[in-house]
Amino acid sequence: MLTSVLHAEIYEQPEAIRRMLDAETDRVAELARALAARDCRYAIIAARGTSDNAARYAQYLMGASLGLPVALATPSLHTRYGARLRFDGALAIGISQSGTSPDICAVIEDARRSGAPTVAITNNLDSNLARAAEFVIPLHAGPERSVAATKTYTTQLAALALLTLSIAGDTTGLAGLAAVPEAMAATLALDARMQEIAGAMADAVAAVTIGRGYHYATAWEIALKLKELTYVPTEPYSAADFQHGPIALVRDDFPITLVATQGAVADDLTTLATRLHELGAHLTAISDVPAILDVADRPAALPVSVEERFAPMTAIVAGQLLAFHLARARGFDPDNPRSIRKVTETR
Amino acid sequence: MLTSVLHAEIYEQPEAIRRMLDAETDRVAELARALAARDCRYAIIAARGTSDNAARYAQYLMGASLGLPVALATPSLHTRYGARLRFDGALAIGISQSGTSPDICAVIEDARRSGAPTVAITNNLDSNLARAAEFVIPLHAGPERSVAATKTYTTQLAALALLTLSIAGDTTGLAGLAAVPEAMAATLALDARMQEIAGAMADAVAAVTIGRGYHYATAWEIALKLKELTYVPTEPYSAADFQHGPIALVRDDFPITLVATQGAVADDLTTLATRLHELGAHLTAISDVPAILDVADRPAALPVSVEERFAPMTAIVAGQLLAFHLARARGFDPDNPRSIRKVTETR
Repeated sequence: MLTSVLHAEIYEQPEAIRRMLDAETDRVAELARALAARDCRYAIIAARGTSDNAARYAQYLMGASLGLPVALATPSLHTRYGARLRFDGALAIGISQSGTSPDICAVIEDARRSGAPTVAITNNLDSNLARAAEFVIPLHAGPERSVAATKTYTTQLAALALLTLSIAGDTTGLAGLAAVPEAMAATLALDARMQEIAGAMADAVAAVTIGRGYHYATAWEIALKLKELTYVPTEPYSAADFQHGPIALVRDDFPITLVATQGAVADDLTTLATRLHELGAHLTAISDVPAILDVADRPAALPVSVEERFAPMTAIVAGQLLAFHLARARGFDPDNPRSIRKVTETR
Repeated sequence: MLTSVLHAEIYEQPEAIRRMLDAETDRVAELARALAARDCRYAIIAARGTSDNAARYAQYLMGASLGLPVALATPSLHTRYGARLRFDGALAIGISQSGTSPDICAVIEDARRSGAPTVAITNNLDSNLARAAEFVIPLHAGPERSVAATKTYTTQLAALALLTLSIAGDTTGLAGLAAVPEAMAATLALDARMQEIAGAMADAVAAVTIGRGYHYATAWEIALKLKELTYVPTEPYSAADFQHGPIALVRDDFPITLVATQGAVADDLTTLATRLHELGAHLTAISDVPAILDVADRPAALPVSVEERFAPMTAIVAGQLLAFHLARARGFDPDNPRSIRKVTETR
């Protein structure tokens, strides 16, 4: 295999999360104590692209663990419509690898001006976002040289999990989180299998990814990697939304990637997988649920099962490898995607 | 032209909105007075499919007019993860044509149990959703016989506008809203033009729709109609998110439908339209901005300009007509989309 920066960074992820957890666990415990004194009734997260998918993960994790509704910010309200949003009762979080996108900074600046607690999650301590926020959680991912984000995504998920579990005082959960890097490392064993699946998908003209609950984020992030690296138009869905209309797309051989691991929605997704199979879809399943792997045309069996709330950090590794190999199978260079740059500044 | 239920319902929309405004304006003014006494710091909206696109409109309208952050609910937290969300400070709104989807009802029931004010926006007063909520705004759209929602979408937008402007006490805005049905009726004149554009798009294998701000909702709703009726996989984007990765998809002849009307984001979208044109995209523009219509390969010039905040009710008419004609151009029956039913009950 030719060397690839992207491929190397996919493999760096377990170590990056370990580094972040080692450096930040005590600091985030302090941050959690500081937040306890503030009136946080809901969270609002500003993010774009990959970081917005990390925000989708937080919607489920913070909702289930803290009972906290999570809103995804609409930055153009701040930068284009001059809206003066009230932030009383909000915990405002900005997520950005580079920390430079002006619209994300604008949301956090407005929130801080209103007195709401603000947290920046970024790989760049020397950034406008880090300066704008009252609190910062650095990702410790090291420089990310690929245009397509991988290790900054999974460290963002881990940072959000660390923050949420620390606020919840969930020491069992924190112990589970500490074991995630090992499970991610084991998941890298799917590399050859994802290459086989990519070979079978090389001619796709469009695709869909589906997840539910915690893996809604995983479905979005796999779809984004496929678009960035393979140029296959791929739309992500929640299993429920997909049935409200878009299921009409499915015809013979339509490629669908389903992400479903053991937990609260496994039964729903088993039912959906069976229906999609009957409709003639070509189903790739990234899963540790035997009934789903059985019905899939292209099963990718996750070698290690983790708690459902942590599975987005393992399952995405399989998705990243799929995007990497599909780019190559289609004759593209995964290290040099067209038309995009590492840092996109939108206003 | 063969008769079509869908086509007839597209044409019924101006009258449906007039009916809703006539019947509900005074009642919603009362509702607004009742809400003023409650502690609403942010809104949370539960919806699926087309109704979720109406919720996206509310994110901008309520943000800009009321300074209210709007969260889109994640219903599976309630139905599958047993989360007990706190709703203090929330205004909870459920939007559903049929009022029957159990997951949407579950969010509103949980919110009402916590003491938050709850509003149902539905075409079915005799539904679980209408019974679950403290307040109801009926859509008055009459029976919607098409599987693909049209008049219930635009009456949902109008109901959300009526609620927002009533809370804001914006009498000028309410007068502007009352003039929208006439502008929608004028937009129906684009019928033949959208048929021409549909003819040119008949062979598309994938597509993208783009909007920003208020038209983020329009981009989503056009994409959903295209998927439901034409089976062209079509993904909606905000102009900003599209530049954070997915712009890599664009190659020669990639079909993009841009929705952009006069207002705060017109300059941004003019810049983006020029860039997409240079990248070789095949650009359809639903617009009243001369610079955008000039650069588009397939301009669809809106015959009447309305205030930006109301333009989602006019521009979507062009999008609905596009989906209708593209279904026919591709040999499908727009009244009988495959694999979907009018009412989808997800849990």
